[in-house]
Amino acid sequence: MKFDVLADMEYTAQSQGTLILCIHALRTPNQTVINETFTVEPYIKAEELVSANGENRLVRLEVTEPGELKLQYRATIDNCYKLIDMSAAEEVPIHKLSPDILPYLNPSRYCQSDKLFRLAHNMFGYIESPFEKVTTLVNWIYNNVQYLSGSTNSETSAYDTVTEQAGVCRDFAHLGIALCRALTIPARYFTGYAYKLVPADFHACFEAYIGGEWILFDATKLAPLNSLIKIATGRDAADAAIANIFGDFIFNSMRVSCELADDNYKPYYYTPRKQEGLSYI
Amino acid sequence: MKFDVLADMEYTAQSQGTLILCIHALRTPNQTVINETFTVEPYIKAEELVSANGENRLVRLEVTEPGELKLQYRATIDNCYKLIDMSAAEEVPIHKLSPDILPYLNPSRYCQSDKLFRLAHNMFGYIESPFEKVTTLVNWIYNNVQYLSGSTNSETSAYDTVTEQAGVCRDFAHLGIALCRALTIPARYFTGYAYKLVPADFHACFEAYIGGEWILFDATKLAPLNSLIKIATGRDAADAAIANIFGDFIFNSMRVSCELADDNYKPYYYTPRKQEGLSYI
Amino acid sequence: MKFDVLADMEYTAQSQGTLILCIHALRTPNQTVINETFTVEPYIKAEELVSANGENRLVRLEVTEPGELKLQYRATIDNCYKLIDMSAAEEVPIHKLSPDILPYLNPSRYCQSDKLFRLAHNMFGYIESPFEKVTTLVNWIYNNVQYLSGSTNSETSAYDTVTEQAGVCRDFAHLGIALCRALTIPARYFTGYAYKLVPADFHACFEAYIGGEWILFDATKLAPLNSLIKIATGRDAADAAIANIFGDFIFNSMRVSCELADDNYKPYYYTPRKQEGLSYI
Amino acid sequence: MKFDVLADMEYTAQSQGTLILCIHALRTPNQTVINETFTVEPYIKAEELVSANGENRLVRLEVTEPGELKLQYRATIDNCYKLIDMSAAEEVPIHKLSPDILPYLNPSRYCQSDKLFRLAHNMFGYIESPFEKVTTLVNWIYNNVQYLSGSTNSETSAYDTVTEQAGVCRDFAHLGIALCRALTIPARYFTGYAYKLVPADFHACFEAYIGGEWILFDATKLAPLNSLIKIATGRDAADAAIANIFGDFIFNSMRVSCELADDNYKPYYYTPRKQEGLSYI
Repeated sequence: MKFDVLADMEYTAQSQGTLILCIHALRTPNQTVINETFTVEPYIKAEELVSANGENRLVRLEVTEPGELKLQYRATIDNCYKLIDMSAAEEVPIHKLSPDILPYLNPSRYCQSDKLFRLAHNMFGYIESPFEKVTTLVNWIYNNVQYLSGSTNSETSAYDTVTEQAGVCRDFAHLGIALCRALTIPARYFTGYAYKLVPADFHACFEAYIGGEWILFDATKLAPLNSLIKIATGRDAADAAIANIFGDFIFNSMRVSCELADDNYKPYYYTPRKQEGLSYI
Repeated sequence: MKFDVLADMEYTAQSQGTLILCIHALRTPNQTVINETFTVEPYIKAEELVSANGENRLVRLEVTEPGELKLQYRATIDNCYKLIDMSAAEEVPIHKLSPDILPYLNPSRYCQSDKLFRLAHNMFGYIESPFEKVTTLVNWIYNNVQYLSGSTNSETSAYDTVTEQAGVCRDFAHLGIALCRALTIPARYFTGYAYKLVPADFHACFEAYIGGEWILFDATKLAPLNSLIKIATGRDAADAAIANIFGDFIFNSMRVSCELADDNYKPYYYTPRKQEGLSYI
Repeated sequence: MKFDVLADMEYTAQSQGTLILCIHALRTPNQTVINETFTVEPYIKAEELVSANGENRLVRLEVTEPGELKLQYRATIDNCYKLIDMSAAEEVPIHKLSPDILPYLNPSRYCQSDKLFRLAHNMFGYIESPFEKVTTLVNWIYNNVQYLSGSTNSETSAYDTVTEQAGVCRDFAHLGIALCRALTIPARYFTGYAYKLVPADFHACFEAYIGGEWILFDATKLAPLNSLIKIATGRDAADAAIANIFGDFIFNSMRVSCELADDNYKPYYYTPRKQEGLSYI
Repeated sequence: MKFDVLADMEYTAQSQGTLILCIHALRTPNQTVINETFTVEPYIKAEELVSANGENRLVRLEVTEPGELKLQYRATIDNCYKLIDMSAAEEVPIHKLSPDILPYLNPSRYCQSDKLFRLAHNMFGYIESPFEKVTTLVNWIYNNVQYLSGSTNSETSAYDTVTEQAGVCRDFAHLGIALCRALTIPARYFTGYAYKLVPADFHACFEAYIGGEWILFDATKLAPLNSLIKIATGRDAADAAIANIFGDFIFNSMRVSCELADDNYKPYYYTPRKQEGLSYI
C-alpha cells in the first residue's frame, strides 16, 4: 500500500541546543521510501544517524542560535505486511531466543514489568496460546483504560496506567508491553504514521514476539492495524521518542497527516474468530 | 594488575527453566582473561552469548529438570586502567555524541532521570566542570545515602533512593546514573568483581562519559576504584543483572571473592586535589 | 463470647524516647473488658490517653533511660456482635452522612482511593447492592493478593498492593478500604486480637459503612469474623498503629495470643448465600 | 484587621449529586465574621456542618437536578494574630503533647513523612531551634521548588514534590508539612483567603506546632503572613479541600478576592533577624 505522510513541527529555540528527531519512515525490505524530503527553516544542516539499536533513523540538528524553527518531513511510502497464522504459534522458549530479543523481556523506564508480574499472571496466566494471551490483554486495556487526552504526561508509565486507567496511545502501548514482558513474552514499542487516526497525530502501539515473529498490537484500536507506516521501534518511548530536545526549546505546534495514495485498501483489525497476526517485518 | 576471581552460586530449580548469568569477566584490550573455568553441577551445557548491546558476556543454561544447581566461575584476570587528566575535560556536546552513546542519556527502568531534572540542576547545575559535577554528586550520595543491606529490593529505583536515602551498591549506582543523565551527562551501569570489598559480593558502580571517555565512579566508596574487574555495562541493572531467572528457581547461596595475584598494588580513590579520572576502557 | 488476650512485647531502648501503644481492648457497649493488666518492666508510669478521634485507647510511656523494656497486656474480654440483614441495605447518600463519617471517604496515607477511582468503578461499579459490592471486592483481594510475610513494609500502601498483589493483613485491609472509598463507601481500618489466627499476631481488617452500620470485612479470611476483639479504628494504619516509636528503639520480639474463654463458639464467615453483615458496634 | 472576601464558583451538574464546600471563614476567638452571605443559584438549601475534627465549617448541598450552579460566599472578617517570640521556643516533647496534636505527627495522603525521614534529618536535623528548623526548610522549599501553575494535580503529594521540585501552593504546603512531621514537629494544612495573592485564588500554607503554639509558615512567600483569613485546618488537602464533589459535576470557573477593609495594614514576613512566629490561633 502507498501512503503520503507529512509531519510539520514548529519550535521556538530560546537558547542554543540540539534537537534529535525520530520522524523518518524506516527503510526495510517490506517498507520502501519512494521519496522523502526533510526541510528545516531557517536552514540548518541535518545529520542523519542510525540509532544505537541499529534500527531507527534519527535526525540531529544543531541549533546555534535562538529563533523560530520550522521542520517538515514529507514522504511517500510503499509498505506491505504479512498475516501470519497464529493458531498454533507458541512462545519461543527463553533458551532459544536470540540475544537481540532478550532485552525486550527486561523492564524499562515506562514498562515496569517486574512490578506487574503477579497481576499479569493472575489476569492472563491461565491462557495457553500466546497470541490469545496478548489479544486478551489488549482487549482488557481497550475496555478498561479510558483514552483521555491530557490525562498523562511524559513521565507516566505502565505502573501508573494499570491503576489510573486513563491515558493516550503511548500509555496504552506501555501497558501492553509491560504486561507481555511480565508474562515472559518479548515486547517492544512501535511508533508510526497511521492512516485514519483521529485526531491526526503520530501513533504508538507495540509488537510482541510470538512464534518467532514480531506481531503488531494496538490497544487503542484507533487505527486499522494495516494502516501504519513504521518510524521506529525500541524498548519504550524513551528509546523511540519523536523528539529529544536538549536546550530551552518551546514546542509550538505540530501537524501530522497520513493519506492513502493507493486504491483497494481494506482496513484490518483482529477479530475473535481469526487467529491471524499482522507483522510489518 | 592480576586478580583471581571466584563466584560460587547455588540454586534449587523447582521447575524447568532457563538461567542467564552475567558473571564472566569481560575481554577487552585492557582486560585479559588469562584463564577461566565455568562449571555447572550437575553438568548442563552452557551456551555463551554476547548481549544485545554487543558488550557483555552472557551464559545461558537450559535447566530441563528440577534439582540442585551449583555454578562456579573462576578466573585469573589481568587488567589495567588509565588515569586521565580531567582538569580541562568538557562535556561532549550533544551534537557530537556518537549514536552509541545517546541511549545513555535516556531514562531507564531504575534511573528515571526525567523525574530528577529540576533536583539535579538545583543541586549541581552551578558546577561548570563535568568531572567536578559528577564527583560532587557522588560525594553527596556518599554523605546522604545510608548503606543498609536489606533496605531495598530488586524493584527499588533512583526515584526511591533520592528520597529514602538508604540502599546498597546497586541503588547508589542507579542514583548516580540518574543524576548524571538529568544533567545531560551520559552514564551507564557497571558491574564487576571488586578487590577488598567488604562484605565480598559482586559490586556495582557507574561510568560517566566526560571528555570523550567513560570515567568510573563509585558512590559507595567501598572499594578502591582500581580494584575492579569489569563484568558488564548497561543502562542499569535491568541490562546487566548478575542473573536472570526464568522459572521457579530458589536462590540458596552465593560466595564471591576477588584476590590480588600481583604485587605492587596501590589503592586509588579520587581526592579533591587531583582532577584525574580513572577509566577501564 | 469471652476471650483471653495477651500481648508481650520487648524493646531495647537505645536512647531516651516515647512509646505510644495501641494494644488495649476497646471498651464499648458491646465489648466489656472484664479485667486487664498492663505491666512494664522495669516500671515506667504508663499514661492512658484517648486518641484524637475519640475512640481508641492509647498508652504513652516516657522512656527516660536506655535499656531493655518488657511490656505485657493481658485481658479478659466479653464481646458480642450483631448480624444485620444486608439484603436490602443501601448506600447512605452523601447528603445524609453524619460529618463524623465523611473523613472515611477521603484518601489517606495508605489508602489512596483518589488514584483507584477508575479501577474500582471498572471492576465493581456495576454491582448495585453495596454489601455485595464490598464482598465482591473482598473476594477479589482474597483471590488475587498473595499473603506473603515479609513482602511489604510500613511504607507499603494500597496503591502498591493493587498492582504488586502480595502483602500481609494490613495491606489487604488498606486495599479494601481504598477500593470502598473509591466507590464512595466510607471505610475504616480495624485492628484487633483474633482467635484462631495463624500465625498468632495482631490482626487488621476493615469496616465499611453500609445501610447506616459499620460492617466488618476481612480480605485475608484468616480468622472467623466473629473471633475479633476490637483494639482500634482509624483512617488507616497511620491512625491505628500498634506502636508509635519516637526515639531509637529496637523491636526485639512480640507474642500475641487470643484464646476462647467460653463454650459454644461457632465461627462465622460470610457466604455467598447469606446477605448478613457482622458488626461489632 | 478587616478584610472583605469573596468567592464565586460555577459548576455544571450533569447528574444529581452532593457538593461539600469548605469556603466559609472560621469563627474563632481571634477571627470574627462581621457579616457573611452564602447564596446558591438556583436556590438549594445549604446545610452547614462542622467537620469531624471539630474545627472547620462545611456547607453541604444536595443537588437534585442537573443544571448550572452558581455559588457565592461574601464576608467581612475581622481577625488578629499574635507574634510570638520563638528565640527560646523548644519542641514540645512527645510525652507532653496533647492527644489532639498527635495525629499531626502521622503521615497522611499527601504528606508521606515516613518516606522522608532520612532526607529531612540529613538536611535539617542539625538545626537545634525548631523555629529555625522550620524557617530553614521553608526557605529550602522556596528556593528549590518552582511555582508552576498546572504542573501538578490533585494526586500530587509531598513525595513527588520533594523530587520533581515544581508545584503550586498546595504542593508547597504538603512538602513543608511532610518535612516537619519527619522531624517530629506536628504540622497541619491551612487554607484561607489571602490579601495581595497574585493571581487571586484560595491559598494554602501550613502551621507547625512549636513551643506550644501553632505557628504559620508559607513556603510560597506569595502573600504576607498577616494577610490570611483562615478557612480550615486539617492533616492535608484531603481534610480541607475547598470542594468535595460527589457526582458528575463540571467545574467551570472561580473568582476569589480578598480586599483590605481597614487602614494601617503593614505586611509581615519572617526575616532572618527576627525569631518571631505568627499565629492566628
